[in-house]
Formats: sequence, structure tokens, C-alpha cells
Amino acid sequence: MSQPMDRALRTRAARVIPGGMYGHQAVGALPEGYPQFFARAEGPWLWDTDGNLLLDLMCAYGPQLFGYAHDDIDRAYSEQMAIGDAMTGPSPLIVDLAETMVAMVGHAEWAMFCKNGSDATTMALMVARAHTGRNAIVRAAGAYHGSSPWSNPRPRGIAPSDQAGQHICTYNDVESLEAAVKAAGADLAAIFASPFRHDVFIDQASPSAAYAKRARELADETGALLIVDEVRAGFRIARDCSWSLLGVAPDLSCWGKAIANGHPISALMGSEKARGAAEKIYATGSYWFAAAAMAASLATLKLIRESDYLEQITAMGESLRSGLDDRASAHGFTVRQTGPAQMPLILFEEDPDMRLGYAWSASMVRHGVYMHPWHNMFISAAMTDANIAFALDAADQSFAELAKTAPKLGPNTRYPGPRRA
Amino acid sequence: MSQPMDRALRTRAARVIPGGMYGHQAVGALPEGYPQFFARAEGPWLWDTDGNLLLDLMCAYGPQLFGYAHDDIDRAYSEQMAIGDAMTGPSPLIVDLAETMVAMVGHAEWAMFCKNGSDATTMALMVARAHTGRNAIVRAAGAYHGSSPWSNPRPRGIAPSDQAGQHICTYNDVESLEAAVKAAGADLAAIFASPFRHDVFIDQASPSAAYAKRARELADETGALLIVDEVRAGFRIARDCSWSLLGVAPDLSCWGKAIANGHPISALMGSEKARGAAEKIYATGSYWFAAAAMAASLATLKLIRESDYLEQITAMGESLRSGLDDRASAHGFTVRQTGPAQMPLILFEEDPDMRLGYAWSASMVRHGVYMHPWHNMFISAAMTDANIAFALDAADQSFAELAKTAPKLGPNTRYPGPRRA
Repeated sequence: MSQPMDRALRTRAARVIPGGMYGHQAVGALPEGYPQFFARAEGPWLWDTDGNLLLDLMCAYGPQLFGYAHDDIDRAYSEQMAIGDAMTGPSPLIVDLAETMVAMVGHAEWAMFCKNGSDATTMALMVARAHTGRNAIVRAAGAYHGSSPWSNPRPRGIAPSDQAGQHICTYNDVESLEAAVKAAGADLAAIFASPFRHDVFIDQASPSAAYAKRARELADETGALLIVDEVRAGFRIARDCSWSLLGVAPDLSCWGKAIANGHPISALMGSEKARGAAEKIYATGSYWFAAAAMAASLATLKLIRESDYLEQITAMGESLRSGLDDRASAHGFTVRQTGPAQMPLILFEEDPDMRLGYAWSASMVRHGVYMHPWHNMFISAAMTDANIAFALDAADQSFAELAKTAPKLGPNTRYPGPRRA
Repeated sequence: MSQPMDRALRTRAARVIPGGMYGHQAVGALPEGYPQFFARAEGPWLWDTDGNLLLDLMCAYGPQLFGYAHDDIDRAYSEQMAIGDAMTGPSPLIVDLAETMVAMVGHAEWAMFCKNGSDATTMALMVARAHTGRNAIVRAAGAYHGSSPWSNPRPRGIAPSDQAGQHICTYNDVESLEAAVKAAGADLAAIFASPFRHDVFIDQASPSAAYAKRARELADETGALLIVDEVRAGFRIARDCSWSLLGVAPDLSCWGKAIANGHPISALMGSEKARGAAEKIYATGSYWFAAAAMAASLATLKLIRESDYLEQITAMGESLRSGLDDRASAHGFTVRQTGPAQMPLILFEEDPDMRLGYAWSASMVRHGVYMHPWHNMFISAAMTDANIAFALDAADQSFAELAKTAPKLGPNTRYPGPRRA
């Protein structure tokens, strides 16, 4: 895989971008050979800047639900952009969008729109604090709720006061949840939860009904608010809040990524109980009321309601999962495939520094399939049976290559290791 | 001014949006009769949902530098959207944009892109903390640096720990700056500064060279970083960092709003000294690497470099300012017009609850000119002599109306009053 363009871009980037790239789209912690830059995207496909075509199982880290450059959604964006986008006040679309989302998300009576997933989770924190007059929160170790100082997973640049009053539990562990709530005591403002455990580096896990229900009970007992952070998983598990499948209604839910198929918008939604507090906080941003992303979101939500995208991504994910299992075992490997099939994570057994996972993922990329070795991936509704067959052919070849190279693999120096809680 | 559509939308919004609207685009603190919603925008014009046409002096609270629905800029957005926008990695445009901005902003050697102005100011805080290993900051009372918990101007939903270690000075007051730096002591990580005092409710003020230079000296003496927050004023004062006019180079500068003429992107820029720390922080967002807004920004920056927009908005602003002075005094009023002419703030003398300002602004809106009674406004390069003449005709009529109604005006219950520091 020749990459002269990508290499040239990296050289230029190293001069004007700290570290050459930053955040979740820096490839420094990915296997060697991953392209840093992409030239084009369409449907389920990405082209890197050297013309290599890749079936993209990352879907832009979640936003792509219906495939890149989706005609209906992007047309809605463009048409609204010509009429009015970021104006001195919102367009009527903000009302349409709030009504539409409230009609779709069972627990919610209201919505506020913002840009980043982090905006929505931070506003949730503020609403819970305003509602309760308290400050402490409970969240699960390793759960990602955005890169704001209060939720940032890394220590550099974060003051201890930014994360004061945080009590950490273990996802799906009812006793640890109860202990964290107890530790927060009379200062508990909120219990944060991911819809399922989708932490990086470790196996994903479905939420246990007991854990979700106990979180609801503990919020009710203490007067704290229960917050489900749907930014990553929203509308990939259900056409409603993910925990609706467990019969548990949060007070607040945070949305982003897939709600506008990659156009920049996120949302905080809440129950009637939390409305008063939401009215009191000051939350705003220069582009939060921009109408074009709202038009794109309305078009996306229509597809979510009216298409069989959810059944389709689930079926495609299951087909990929069972095919990978077969091909792995045919070549003598065991992979742990965890989480919902439509948000797959694939880890190798007996692979503590992920050298097998890295080598296999790098091989997948060489064979035209963009995989992530330690972050959950995403199936989009643009993917077809033929795409899955293509991915499985690549997997077959990659497992075969790995069978040959595995014994010679050295320590994996690129693996960044599990994050702190 | 008939507003049945706006009223109907407000009724619907009240059900599904907390308070009916939130943040800086809620009109509850503006004079009665202001439209809450807008249907369309083009050049310097806004249409409300009832078909009323308004010359917009708010420019979307800053982002509109070249006028709404600008052909070249929006075409750049649309064309890039069709090629690739939010992808699994950045496009080459992130490198082009970083190079372009570094070439334009004298103090800076690198750039990182994000979405909200608040993202850029929060990353600046993180970089300063990572660079120094310290936590405290100095900022000016009343200065707005975004709505993140650390900078949020209102108390609801904010924990005391969110704003721990903040030492407040008075803008342009060198002694108070020195005292705040002294109070921060060995924990000082950063000195934040606005390019000029553009706080709400009070007269704007140019930065004194002594203040800016002392801020630079104090940062150097203490090892803290000097941060200039250009989000609101960037490229409306200079084609470089605003303080370049004073000969003062910050270590970090924060950009947003006008850099892409309303398309969603913001930026943190920094000097070589701060690069190492910028490499270490974890900062990211789902849409931060999206290429369409970068294409729009490149098109906007080209206009900034190659057009006489800055001279034009300055001339238009000065023409508006002198015309308003004439018309105000002709009707027996004195208005204080402060700040750069291209970012005007207009306050009435002897108007403690702003009843004069509110009545006059409401009249301006009735006459087709959207003004803000207590937030600085913005002149865009789409505005022409004819637009200024239109605004001055409206002002003449509005001052005449105010001369009749002023004696009968009751207390202004909508004025929210100065914010806390």
C-alpha cells in the first residue's frame, strides 16, 4: 500500500498541527500503515489520499448511520444553507426538530440542541446540578462522556478541581453502583450511564437490567437525575432511548453523532421533571442554532423512523460477526466479538499488548477494510451483503497472513494501553 | 409589525424547548416585539417568519463577516460536503487551513480546530495548565470566554469547583491585573484577555497598550501563558491577532465565529513555546475534523486576505456612528457609542434600566433594522452605503418617536442587568 501523499501530508501537518494530529483522529495509536488523511467518502467507502479504497467500519467514529454523502440528507443541508443557516435567531426548524425528537424519545418532553456530544453531556451535568442544588456525580470507570475537563479521560491539562466530587463505579456491578451513590451521599446530583459498556480497550457489555433498574431506583431515592449518554450508541440500538429496551427511563439523555448522519449537531433531552432546571442554566454556542444541520437531522430522523435501517445494520453486523468467527477459527484464532453486532468490537484472545489485533487490523486495511483494533466500530445502513462478503474475504486473507506472522511478532509499542478511569 | 407566525412558533416551542428558547438567541431579555425566529437570510438581510425584512446589525452574533448565504463561501462548503465532510479521519484541508491560519496570525506556529468558541477557550486553558503544571487563571471581570462550566457567566448548574482558582482583575487596570497575578501566586497558569473590552451591558473599551504589555510581561515573569480570546473580535480588528496592533504577541489565541462566515468551526492557535503542551492534552470532538467547514473557512480567509473588507466594515461603521450621533442629538438624545466602529455598542446616557435603549431598539426593529440594546453589534462586508443610509433613516424616525414616548416610559422589567463577574 503505497502512501506518498499521506506521508507528505504528515510532514506538512507536523509543522502546523501539534503532534501532527490530535484527538480520536490521530493515528499514532493505530497500527502502522493506517492512513492519517482521507480524500473522499461515499456510501460505505473511504478513499485515502493515495487513492486506496477502504470499506469503512468506523463510520467517522459513529456519525455515519446512512452512509457518506447521503443524497437526501445532504440535499436537506444544502437547501437549508441557501435559505438560512447560522442567523441572529433560530429558524422554525428548531421547533420542528425538538417536536420530532420528543415524539421519538419516550422519556423526553423537551430538547436543547448544541454541537458536540460533550456539549450535551456537560449541559446534562449542569441541569442535574441546577435541579438538585448539589454537585457530585456517579459514573462508571472507563466510560467516556466527552473531552470536557470534567469528563476528560487523560490527566494532562486537567485541574483536580475539574473532576472533584466524582464517584466511580463498575459498569453492571450493582454493589459498586450502590457504594458510589453512598459515597456521594447528600451531594449526589447525577448518575451517568452509557447505554451499554462501550469503553475502549476492553470487551463491550450489554447493560444488565438489574443495573439499569437499580440506577433508576437510586436516582429516585436520592433525588439525583439519571442521565443516559446516547452520543455514541443513540439510534443504533433502538429507535428510542437505548434503555427503553430495558424498561428504564432516564431523566436526561444526550444525543449526537448519528442524529444528523455526520452533520454537526447534538442534543440534550429531558423529562418534565428536569425542565425547570434546564430553563435556568446558561448554555449557548455560536453555531448551536444553525438551521442547516437541523434540516439534515430532520431528514436523518425520517429515515430512522421510516426505513428498516436498524434491522439492516443488525443483520449486517450479525452476518459479519458469524463470518469472522468462522474465518478466525479456520485459521486457528479465537476472537472475542462483543457488544451489539451493529457496533462491533473485535479483540483477540491471549493478546495482552494487542500485537495480534494490530497485525490483523493492519492486514485488513491493506486488504481494503478499515478496522479499529480497540475502539468499537459501527455498521452503517449503506452497507450491503456484498460489502460484508468483501470484508469477510479480507478477513480470511488477513487471518491467513496472521497465522504465518504471529509467531514472529514483537512487542506492540503502539498500543496505548487502557485509560485511567 | 404583525407576528402571528412568530407567536405560533413560540407557543409550539414553549412545549418542547425549555423556556421556549435558550442561550444568546432567546429574546426574553430583548425589547418586546423582537422576532424569536427567522425564516431566511441573505447578504445583510434577515426575514422573520412573518415576512418582515430586517437589516441585521447582529450578524448572527458575529459569525457573518461577508454576509449571509455568501456564494463563494457556501459553494466551497457544498462542494466539499459532496466529496467528504465528517469522515473517519481528516481531509488534507486541515493541513491547508492550519498552514493558512499560521501564515496569517503572526504569533502562532500551530493550529487545532474545533467547533465552539468555548472549545477553543477551554483547550487554551488546558494547554496553559499542561504547559505550566499549574491551575489558576487571571481573567477580567465581566469578560465572556464561553459557556463552559469554568467560564459560564451565570451560577445555575455550576459547581464552585468549576471556577476554583480564578483571580479577577479589571480590564485595562494595570494595578488590578498585577494584584490578580500576585493573588494567583505560584499557581498561575494563564492570563486570559479579550482583544478589547466587549462585555455586555457596559461601554466597550479599547485595550490600553500599557495593560496589554503588562499582561505580556507578567506572563513572562511568572511562566504563565498569555491567551487572547479572539472568538468574537477576530479578523474584525486586524488581519492578524488583534493585539498585533499593540505589538503584543500572546502565547495562545482562540478563534471562531467569523473565520468561516458562520460555518461551524473554531480554532486554538499557539506559539512554539506552547506546542509541547498542546501535543499532550486530549482534545477532540465528533465533528471537529469535518472538512466542509474547513473549505468554507479557507474561502473566507481568502476574502479576508484579498479583499478590502476590513477597511469597508470600518468605514461603514464610522459612517453609521457619526450619522447616529447627528440624529440622536437632533432629537435631543446623547448616545455613547463605544468600541471599534465595526463592532458598535450603543447605550443611552442617563438610562440606568435601559428603558430608552429598549424603546429605541424596538422602534428600530419596527423600522426594519435589527439592533441589540446591550450586546455589541457587528458590521458585515455585505453592508453598503445604501444600507447605512437605510439604518440612519430608521434611526431618525426612531429617535423622533422616542422623543415623544420617553417621558411616559415605565420601568424596564425586561432588562436583565449586568452579569456577575
